Parts: sequence; C-alpha cells; structure tokens
Amino acid sequence: MPQRAAIIGGGDIGAGWAARFLLMGWDVAVCAPGAEDRVSAVIDNARRALPSLSDVAMPVEGHLTFHADMTEALQGADWIQECLSEPSDRKRELFQKLQAGSSPDTIMGASSGDDGISALQDGAARPGQILVVRAVEPVYLLPLVELGSSAANPPAVVARAAAILTSLGMRPLPIGAKMDGPITDRLLYAILREARRIVDDGQVTANQVNDTIRYGVGLNFAQSGLIKTDKNMDVSADRAGFFAQFEHSAENASASDHPNRDAADRSRDDTLVTLLRGLKARDVGAGQLLNAHDKRMDRLPLTLDDVADLSQPVTTLHRAVPLDWTDYNGHMTEARYLHAFGEATDRLMALVGCDMDYVASGVSFFTAETHIRHVDEVHAGTRIHVVSQVLLGQGKKMHLFHRMYDADRLLATGEHMLIHVSLTTRKACMPDDRVAVPLGRLAQAHADLPWPEGAGRAVGRK
Amino acid sequence: MPQRAAIIGGGDIGAGWAARFLLMGWDVAVCAPGAEDRVSAVIDNARRALPSLSDVAMPVEGHLTFHADMTEALQGADWIQECLSEPSDRKRELFQKLQAGSSPDTIMGASSGDDGISALQDGAARPGQILVVRAVEPVYLLPLVELGSSAANPPAVVARAAAILTSLGMRPLPIGAKMDGPITDRLLYAILREARRIVDDGQVTANQVNDTIRYGVGLNFAQSGLIKTDKNMDVSADRAGFFAQFEHSAENASASDHPNRDAADRSRDDTLVTLLRGLKARDVGAGQLLNAHDKRMDRLPLTLDDVADLSQPVTTLHRAVPLDWTDYNGHMTEARYLHAFGEATDRLMALVGCDMDYVASGVSFFTAETHIRHVDEVHAGTRIHVVSQVLLGQGKKMHLFHRMYDADRLLATGEHMLIHVSLTTRKACMPDDRVAVPLGRLAQAHADLPWPEGAGRAVGRK
Repeated sequence: MPQRAAIIGGGDIGAGWAARFLLMGWDVAVCAPGAEDRVSAVIDNARRALPSLSDVAMPVEGHLTFHADMTEALQGADWIQECLSEPSDRKRELFQKLQAGSSPDTIMGASSGDDGISALQDGAARPGQILVVRAVEPVYLLPLVELGSSAANPPAVVARAAAILTSLGMRPLPIGAKMDGPITDRLLYAILREARRIVDDGQVTANQVNDTIRYGVGLNFAQSGLIKTDKNMDVSADRAGFFAQFEHSAENASASDHPNRDAADRSRDDTLVTLLRGLKARDVGAGQLLNAHDKRMDRLPLTLDDVADLSQPVTTLHRAVPLDWTDYNGHMTEARYLHAFGEATDRLMALVGCDMDYVASGVSFFTAETHIRHVDEVHAGTRIHVVSQVLLGQGKKMHLFHRMYDADRLLATGEHMLIHVSLTTRKACMPDDRVAVPLGRLAQAHADLPWPEGAGRAVGRK
Repeated sequence: MPQRAAIIGGGDIGAGWAARFLLMGWDVAVCAPGAEDRVSAVIDNARRALPSLSDVAMPVEGHLTFHADMTEALQGADWIQECLSEPSDRKRELFQKLQAGSSPDTIMGASSGDDGISALQDGAARPGQILVVRAVEPVYLLPLVELGSSAANPPAVVARAAAILTSLGMRPLPIGAKMDGPITDRLLYAILREARRIVDDGQVTANQVNDTIRYGVGLNFAQSGLIKTDKNMDVSADRAGFFAQFEHSAENASASDHPNRDAADRSRDDTLVTLLRGLKARDVGAGQLLNAHDKRMDRLPLTLDDVADLSQPVTTLHRAVPLDWTDYNGHMTEARYLHAFGEATDRLMALVGCDMDYVASGVSFFTAETHIRHVDEVHAGTRIHVVSQVLLGQGKKMHLFHRMYDADRLLATGEHMLIHVSLTTRKACMPDDRVAVPLGRLAQAHADLPWPEGAGRAVGRK
C-alpha cells in the first residue's frame, strides 16, 4: 500500500512538496483552501520536469486529494508537512491541532520554524515527532532539505525521516537544534545585503551585480559550492583551508602546494564546460553570451551563393569535438556522431532556404531514416568537419550523404532520408519554391559526383 | 596580422589570460620568470577545454613566447595585462615602467587594483590608457570581466577595451571609478563570512554549509544569479523588487501578482533540469545524488537469470523522455533516438556479461554500423521503453535490433552491428567466455523469433 502524505498550506513550498511526494508514488492529501488551482498548476509543472531527472522509470504516481478540512487531510498520514508562514505562537497551536488529529508514528515536518525547533516542540504533547524540514524552491527539482532536530527527537525518528527524504530523491542535511532559520536564507541574505551595499554605493547597477554571479562565480557554486574543484572534498576536515582558499586569488600560484592541481583543474573544467553547454542549449545566462560569440565567429556559407564550388560536396560543419561529447576514454560517443550529422543536416537545410523563417511558416524536413558507418575514432578537442552531398533533392524527398573528417582522415559517414512535412498535419507535403528551387539547383550541381562508397547499403552488407 | 598581448605575471589569472588571448588567435608574450611550466600547464588545460564552448570553428591559435625580460615582452603589444599581486605603491611603479616600454595606444589592464583605479592612474604619464580589468578563474572559461575606468580614460579607449574583451568571448561589466576591489570578491567574502559564522555557532559543519549551496541555491545562481527565473530581466529597473524577491519564500503565493508565473517557472525548470542532467553526466555534486537515486529506483534485469522470458525480446530501457532531449516543439531530437538506443545497447551488453568490470579488463564492443527508422514522434515526459532482439551473437559480432515504444505505439527501430574489440589495440578480437557464453545463450533463445520488419534494409529501400 502506498504511503500517505498530508500537506498543510498551498504556497510554492507546499505545492512543491505535494508534487514530490505524489510523483515518488505517495498518496497526497492537500489542505490549502482557496489555493487548489495554484497547487494543481505547480504539480503539472512538476509532472513535466521531475521525470527528466531520472534515467530509469519513476514510480507510478500516487493519488491526489484536496481537503478544505484539515483534520480530514491528516487521516492516515505517514508524513505531515506544514507549509504555512505564520508567527511562531500560532504555529505552536497549529502543531497541537496536528498532533490531536494524527498518530504518534507520523512524522511532522515544519517548513519554517524560524525561531528554532524548540519553539514548536515546547508544550507539544509529543515533541519527539516534530522536526524542522526545510526544502528550497522548486522543491520538486532541488535535492536540498535541511533537517532540524533536538534532544527531544528519538534518533530512530530522525533516521526514519532522513530515509524517507532520501527515498524521495532528496539530500537531508542534519542541522543542530539551536539553528534558527534556514542556512540557505542566511547565505542568500548575506549576499543580498552585500549586493545592496555595492549598488547603493552607486558604482554599479543591480543588473551588473547579478551578472557577476550568473556569468562568474555562480557557475562554480553550482558544481561544488564554495570549493574550488568539482571533486567531493571533506571540507570539515580542513576548515581552515576551506575558509582560506579564496584569499589570494590574483597571487602567483605555487604549483608545489598542489601536486594534483592540474588534474583537479581539468575535472573542474569538464564540469564547467558541461554546465556552460547546457546553458547554451537553453540560450540562457552565460549560454546566451556563448551563442552570440559563435555567431560572430561563424565562417561557414549562409546561402548557396556563398559556396565557392557548388559542384563539390559542401562543408556543413566545422568545429572541435567538445568534452561533453566523449566517454570516459575521451572518444566521441556513438550518439554524438548523429548529433554532428544532425547539425550538418540543419546547416544544409538552411543553405537551401529551409531556415528558421521557413520553418516558422509551418513546414520543415523530418528525418525518416539514417545509416551511420563508424570508420575511425576521434577524441575531444579534435577539429572535425563534415562535407555533404545531395543524392536526391526532388519532390518531398531529400537524400543526403555526409562524410565526417579529421583533416583528411575519414571518421564516419551518415546517410539520411528526409521528408518534407507540414508541421501542422505532421504529414508529407511538397516544399514551396523558396526551398524547391535552391535544393534542385544543389542536387543538379551534385548530380555528376560519384556515388559515395557505402551509400545505399544495409547494416552488415558489403 | 594577429594582434599581440603581453601578460605580466604567471599565476592562474595570468596564465588564464595568456590562454584566452592565444586561443582566440592573438600572439601572446608572457613575462613570468620561474612560472613558465605552470603557465604552459594551464594553457594546455585551456586548449583542452575552451574549444568545447564553441559550436563553430575557433580561430587559429596565435604564437606564444616567454620572456624573462619585461621590456622585451612589451614590444608591439596591443594589450598589456598585469597579473601580479603586489601592494599598490609598487604597482604604481610597475605601471610607470610598463608605460615607458610601450605605445600610447596600448591598452593596459590591471588585474587587481584593490585600492581603486586612481591609485594606479595617479602620477602616471598617460593615465588614460590604464584600466582595471579583472576576470575570474578559470579565465579561459568564465566570461565575466569587471572593467573599471575613471574620468581620466577617454570613452573611446574604454569602448575599444570592451570590444576586444567581447571578441575574446567575454562579458565586460563596466564599473565606476570608486569601486575598490572586485564585486566578485565582495560577494564571495560576504557569503564566506556568513558561512564561517554559522559553522562557528556549532550547529552545522563546513561540509553542510557547502552542501546547501551545491545542492540548492547554487543551481539557481548558475542560471540567473539572484533572479528567480532564467529569463533576462532588467533588475536595475526594478531594484526594490529585485531586493525584496526572497523575503517571503514560505508564504502563500498570490498567483494574481504573477500572470506569467507558470510559464516563467517552466522555463526555470527547463534550465535547472539541463544543469542537473549535466552534473549527472559528470557524476558531480547534485548529479551524484541523482545517479545514486536512479540506482535505487532501477527495476530492469541485471543478469540473464533475472529475465522472465528469455525467448522474447528483452526490455533494455524504460524511462521518460527528458526535457533536454527535445527540440523547441517538445519533440525528441534525432540524435536522442540513437542516445536511447545506445543506452539500450549498454544494458544488453551488461546483461550478457560485458559490464564495467569486463570493460575494465581491456575489452568491449564498439558499434560499427547503425540503421535507424523513425516511425512516429514522441514528446518530453512520455514513458518510453526499448525491447532488444539479438539477430546474431557469434564470434566477434553482435547484431542487435531495438524497437522503441510508447506503450504499444512503435516510435523507432535501431539496427546495430557491434564488433568485439581490444581497447588497447582498438582492433577486433574474440570475446572471452564471460561474455561469449551468455551472449550465445541469448542469441540461441532469440533464434526462433521472426526476422524483424525493417532489419537488413538500406536507406530508402522498402
């Protein structure tokens, strides 16, 4: 039988908890009078995003109910998560009511508890079941949860709470009883206070302060927090080193202090590259800058008239193999050959007029079939290029043959059959003249090229 | 003719500047007596990482020289970047020497200048060419650069410096003359001071404080800084809102205040998912937690003995289509079909004994050829599964046929010829019994299955 969570409160934190429990297979009862629509909207967003974090099948979603009556919502709950923002004295009353309506085995998590856990436990009938359980937004994506307990909580209860949070895909961080308010908020406010001071000095704008984070240190924070490497490191064992590490950033580095320094730097770089390329794919933050920079550096032809010799296969890709395209041995992974051929196809489509504007008009080419032959291996950093030959460009069909090279070393070939489709009906249709004419011109120019070795061949046939 | 940069100082900042100029096509003269090896090592790391940020061809690398004599390094420099950590009075002397040895048109960037730009410009023969130019580590990857100027700098000089920095792929942030010390450091120290206070209170360890960043807020910082969305937003136009936005995080959200709230949340989620999946691929930080969680949730068979019915195609993948596998229309992109088939192949290899331990012994299967047929489309979030049939598993060859489904709707087929290879010689070789026996067993069990429709077919043939 699925476990059952009761969520009290329908703000983003409450809705986020409801979503996480629900999508991890728990039945969820929400008490958030008047906020049901917003809670449902947040849960829909979570249904869209949370399964993306997993490379295996998620549990079957639990059953969701809304309850105007709090006592009803509490029935049979294994976990009650309080998500209201109220002053401590009213919260103490609330927890008395929650305890009256639920079993002694239920875990009760308080989302705020800014005055410390004792403010909630003092005067409670069963203080041992009350914990501080603070997540960060969006609760359904970010793993962090601060788990506050006191001497009043039996260790077995704390351990059970931690195990449940872990089973929800979260990372419970145990914090001491005297900690008042979330660590997250204290760090966030420290940085905000300093940001405000700098802006008030009138030397920079709020935008600029924000940019120093998203184009700079923020990218390091995401991989490793305040540590200067992406490696796990027991910073508690070297507190002094941890707090001193930023103190001489412009100084001459003494390499002898860091025997594995280069390897650590390379690992950090691998992670930074991965994050920056992710932002690039989203065209967000630092990724937006990188895309703009690419546009400035791009030297490939943009139209057929820019192509020097139309009678030869046309260059449709020229780039280095990035670090995130390779396996642990540094070789380009299988799927990235197709990724590169896909980029080459996109460029060829743009060359024959099937560009963003054309696609925005509701038509495009879809790949129906692909045949890849892996001829030789290639490492991260190698400059590769692709030349593309049109085997057929007529009616609804575009039959392409890509060759991928490192200089003159053939790495792979990609043969692709594309069909021109309506993006509305998702059915095949004829291209209009904006594309049909240039495609016909290129197909004609390539008509006398020799049939490529390996084209038209099935897997395993010579 | 390429432009020329002189780098004075060989710490990580100096080496990082040398690498960025060099890889962006500038000739670079480095004056860093005794630190040449370290500078070379950093440049090698940059050669490895920086081209990964670009999806187009980078410029041809410039020419690198080392000079023990500073005046020699300055010859013909268009940009001099000072990267020493010395007290201001000695730095003023240094800039006097730099000016004596270079042209009035040269831009002179000071990496530190903690006492403000006037401390460097005062008493200089040509104050107008001296700017504060502070980057963050690693200089060759992170785009942020703080660009400090004063009334002594002609606007044309500041504009030229900004244009050059932009051409290097960086984002110059202009800061006022009275700003002493980098914004980055002020924000970093603010958060470090607060972290130290929390740790000194004895309620949490330094590790835990660090974890609140890398498993929580740090992931938001990377996409948008202190803004709660990944969208570009002119925070300077709404300073009050910017600084107030975190003040009621646990409160009931008032949906009416945010008409586009859900859309903004979805966009933020897309970016967070992309970053978290990047960390997952690196098995770093929050990604490490997610991988451990996947392992706990994984329900697919691990050995042939776990497979319920060996005579049928075996399930080798079961997952949702993640958001970062789809195009702007929400359809799974071409290369991700092969990515999913690659995951299915990996799982099948593990099932027949070609697991991590076997690969670590120096042998594996490589894909030689692939044929994909796209049958139907699929959206982000859809649960897909792949069943795999062994067409041949004999000698050095493994011929596989994957079918990808959404429930019973066929989405695509993947036919793959794999060859067993030595990872040392990269040449074909026979698998040993750890793999040959189970693979033979599975091939035998699949021998009576009908030949799949579409197998053995060339592109465009029916």
